[in-house]
Amino acid sequence: MPFTYEFPHPAVATDIAVFTLIAGDLSLLLIKRGGPPFEGSWALPGGFLAPDEDLDSCAHRELKEETGVDAELLFHFANFSAPDRDPRQRVVSIAYLALLRFDLITLKAGSDAADARWFPLASLPNLAFDHREIVDVAVRTLRERLGDLAILFALLPQSFTLTAMQDAYDAVAGAPIDKRNFRKVVFDAGLVEDTGELSRGRHRPARLYRRKQPS
Amino acid sequence: MPFTYEFPHPAVATDIAVFTLIAGDLSLLLIKRGGPPFEGSWALPGGFLAPDEDLDSCAHRELKEETGVDAELLFHFANFSAPDRDPRQRVVSIAYLALLRFDLITLKAGSDAADARWFPLASLPNLAFDHREIVDVAVRTLRERLGDLAILFALLPQSFTLTAMQDAYDAVAGAPIDKRNFRKVVFDAGLVEDTGELSRGRHRPARLYRRKQPS
Repeated sequence: MPFTYEFPHPAVATDIAVFTLIAGDLSLLLIKRGGPPFEGSWALPGGFLAPDEDLDSCAHRELKEETGVDAELLFHFANFSAPDRDPRQRVVSIAYLALLRFDLITLKAGSDAADARWFPLASLPNLAFDHREIVDVAVRTLRERLGDLAILFALLPQSFTLTAMQDAYDAVAGAPIDKRNFRKVVFDAGLVEDTGELSRGRHRPARLYRRKQPS
Repeated sequence: MPFTYEFPHPAVATDIAVFTLIAGDLSLLLIKRGGPPFEGSWALPGGFLAPDEDLDSCAHRELKEETGVDAELLFHFANFSAPDRDPRQRVVSIAYLALLRFDLITLKAGSDAADARWFPLASLPNLAFDHREIVDVAVRTLRERLGDLAILFALLPQSFTLTAMQDAYDAVAGAPIDKRNFRKVVFDAGLVEDTGELSRGRHRPARLYRRKQPS
């Protein structure tokens, strides 16, 4: 049953850039496209807005259907609307991003996705459509928001060393920062509190901190 | 000539919240709707995406057509996509905001707008569609971005007293702040430089400053 309008309407879709930290590398969730166009290419998860949902619901639904990921928080960060960005028809893309812990998630490709996998940002495959540009804007947005160090908690376990927190910062920022200054900023901002426990493992034991809940 | 699609497509439109300072009040640019629905009601300027333009171009074009305003910078800040937000058909709204000096502009209603006028934010008329919600989110966004005091320069003349700059801050923030602290922050951030001139007028002469260009 076709749908008819007096003037041309674009299709509207959401695309979602989900980032995580794997072995110290900022990594991105991609799906392998199960159908044309760009069949077999890697792309951001996403898809078309359904008649009865708003854009936020569409982003959550598409991410869940295509990758199995149930994201608590998705942030809209930009729109992509070049008239020729999709070879089939005009599609306006509403782009979202999220930061997650990969170890709490089991990826499960579904719907239009033939596969779902994490890729280190430094070695992404070629992406379908203008998704490389969407990823670049997502990374730039993340870096602009790093002034709020609290966004790092989404990438960290419940308790963590300050070195781990700084490594997360460096991975998102794409460059190392001054270590002593980082610790000072974290303490001055009252972002963390001592758990009273020490880390175990290969390294010298270090204090474990947790996020301090805003009072 | 109708346009036919296999699945329902929403219409896509831009809406633009343009703010200025008039006699110390944060004020908003509204148009009076020249046709149904909500004919005769006040609303944000805006309109439907044309086939050959992207969303930013659409926002600039619609603002110019309906109000005569040629905005240098429009910022996308949110989308509004509740399925029933327009009584005619589904319309996804891509919302933009701008800060301008009203005294550099001659308003000129055109296209779908029967009138175009500035209203103090504190005494807006009833607005069509969900435009009151769009305005509320625009104001919240502006206030969140006030951490970057440089956004105030869009509201100020070339040279200004620090009192005028602080009045602009207070008008956007919706509440007065500590005067001495404001001056300290402005100077510490190296945002302004002394013009060497003094203000004239009803008040005691005060130093005039201008925006310091980032070096």
